Amino acid sequence: MSLYWSDIVHRLSPYVPGEQPALAHPVKLNTNENPYPPSPAVLAAIRDEVGETGESLRRYPDPTARKLRETVAAYHGLAIEQVFAGNGSDEVLAMAFLALLKHDRPLLFPDITYSFYPTYAKLYDIVYQTVPLADDFTIRIDDYAAPNGGIVFPNPNAPTGHALPLADIEKLVAANPDSVVVIDEAYVDFGAQSAVSLIGRYPNLLVVHTVSKSRSLAGMRVGFAFGDAKLIDALVRVKDSFNSYPLDRVAQAAVTAAYADEAWFRDCRAKVIAGRERLSAGLSALGFDVVPSAANFVFARHESHDAATLSARLREKEIFVRHFKLPRIDQHLRITIGTDAECDTLLAALRELLDGSAA
Amino acid sequence: MSLYWSDIVHRLSPYVPGEQPALAHPVKLNTNENPYPPSPAVLAAIRDEVGETGESLRRYPDPTARKLRETVAAYHGLAIEQVFAGNGSDEVLAMAFLALLKHDRPLLFPDITYSFYPTYAKLYDIVYQTVPLADDFTIRIDDYAAPNGGIVFPNPNAPTGHALPLADIEKLVAANPDSVVVIDEAYVDFGAQSAVSLIGRYPNLLVVHTVSKSRSLAGMRVGFAFGDAKLIDALVRVKDSFNSYPLDRVAQAAVTAAYADEAWFRDCRAKVIAGRERLSAGLSALGFDVVPSAANFVFARHESHDAATLSARLREKEIFVRHFKLPRIDQHLRITIGTDAECDTLLAALRELLDGSAA
Repeated sequence: MSLYWSDIVHRLSPYVPGEQPALAHPVKLNTNENPYPPSPAVLAAIRDEVGETGESLRRYPDPTARKLRETVAAYHGLAIEQVFAGNGSDEVLAMAFLALLKHDRPLLFPDITYSFYPTYAKLYDIVYQTVPLADDFTIRIDDYAAPNGGIVFPNPNAPTGHALPLADIEKLVAANPDSVVVIDEAYVDFGAQSAVSLIGRYPNLLVVHTVSKSRSLAGMRVGFAFGDAKLIDALVRVKDSFNSYPLDRVAQAAVTAAYADEAWFRDCRAKVIAGRERLSAGLSALGFDVVPSAANFVFARHESHDAATLSARLREKEIFVRHFKLPRIDQHLRITIGTDAECDTLLAALRELLDGSAA
Repeated sequence: MSLYWSDIVHRLSPYVPGEQPALAHPVKLNTNENPYPPSPAVLAAIRDEVGETGESLRRYPDPTARKLRETVAAYHGLAIEQVFAGNGSDEVLAMAFLALLKHDRPLLFPDITYSFYPTYAKLYDIVYQTVPLADDFTIRIDDYAAPNGGIVFPNPNAPTGHALPLADIEKLVAANPDSVVVIDEAYVDFGAQSAVSLIGRYPNLLVVHTVSKSRSLAGMRVGFAFGDAKLIDALVRVKDSFNSYPLDRVAQAAVTAAYADEAWFRDCRAKVIAGRERLSAGLSALGFDVVPSAANFVFARHESHDAATLSARLREKEIFVRHFKLPRIDQHLRITIGTDAECDTLLAALRELLDGSAA
């Protein structure tokens, strides 16, 4: 509290990201990073951008990230005017909340979802209502049939990993022609159907992507929004009222290169998906109830062990998973798909913990 | 205009950054970049961060940029709690406007200053009043003796290059104990006195820095705010309600290294200052009236030639300077200090233009 703070600062509920432990070799399964490194083409592009002297770094980057946006537009079969680039999908979502989801009618999102959404709503003083997930953690689109100033959720949802079929997404978008539906597809590449294919037909659909998960570039901070040119224009107007150059030169070069190596992308994705099925089976064998996941994480609860305790005991072994102290999910753990070796380390540690406490 | 836009989008006046021409060898003197590359230590740090495999890039960066902030805190003799890091000083300023400068009483800034300030004010619906500069473009601090919810200006001011002495800054900060005074020191290293030395004594002083000018890293997008821990805490709360990870891994590593090479910094700075005196003399010899500059640019008007025309004619020769179509300064050009060769090219082109039109 301070005399100098604006009223807004007092009302904020800042988001708390997953821990980034300063350890040499943590088994880090808490923030949904990809266990595999980015494409070698990314490294080559960074070296090219920096060059021998760093001469290019003294100059501002392209404020419109034109080359990057052209590349990603072509990748998705969109026009460049349908692509917005920002400093991670969190920044893109923040701008979408302010530009497109702040209206008199309430914004709707699930009660169990990405916990940054209520934070954005408080930052921008956006009225919102949460819509309960079904008991099996599925999103029921019929529950969104209420007057609203916008709808937002991830598909697959976080932290549950549950995916909606494209037909449901389309039904929702078509049923809400007067408000913007934002589908946050951070995890879409791991098993859900993307709504990008609907963009040409629905001027009220905004799809958000990130390079932090399936492109192995969480460290570079780049995300995108795809949608009708007028929606993108709103985001550009907000961006150019906030920070003209959110993407540095290295990030633009790195991510442009990542989208050119489709084979690497497919290979890493296949390994993560295989790892997910393997980890899910291992957890089930230990007595966990695992929500069917289309993401690069699983959401699981043990039939007889407290989630917070398990998380804390794992942490003592330098194994990090995510636990949310929130209603309905405080007995669940969200576990990122690591390498097979990392998942084996986790399973062995859990086996030891469960055996030990049962003894 | 769109049904889907929030009211806020309709009221915005987005900032227009200086042109980034897509030419092989422009003489680019329009966005105040440093004509010299960053320290070789920066390149080494980027190579170290990326490594052989890019393994680190798959992981999120430190959301608190702790190592970078520690380095910069030590450099300035501050505690880490007195340092905020953001995605360029534009983002830092945007957050300061929202967190610390939005109050019932009006924000005050000069009528001729960084043109992003009114853009931020519109974004956040901040009431503001502009305070006219004196006829010689100096800021008169006595003119700020009015009830206010904050004061912000650059020192040296942009686009004039005029600097206020530290004693004037201190007088202003001391005279406004109930509101925050933000001194935007983007250009301070080129000849003005920094107000960082006052921070321990004034809880209402926030000083903003950037690596885009004196550190030759405009391409990397990093800026800082320095101030009392409570002011910094307000910025952190806003940042963590907007984007947890605004600084990517490469940017954090690059800028940390830049602050460790003081000799390079001093050498580049000395060359820019010498170049400024040389360019100022050359422009004066051509009949320009040059505002005495403490920055890495000069602000000049010709006694008998229209500024917009000169700018357009230079542009045809792939020489870029900045012209603002704004009251009181539409006969001025803002010219970044380039290398001696670039400044000679500019002076030769101007000589030709002036001779040609006089003939």
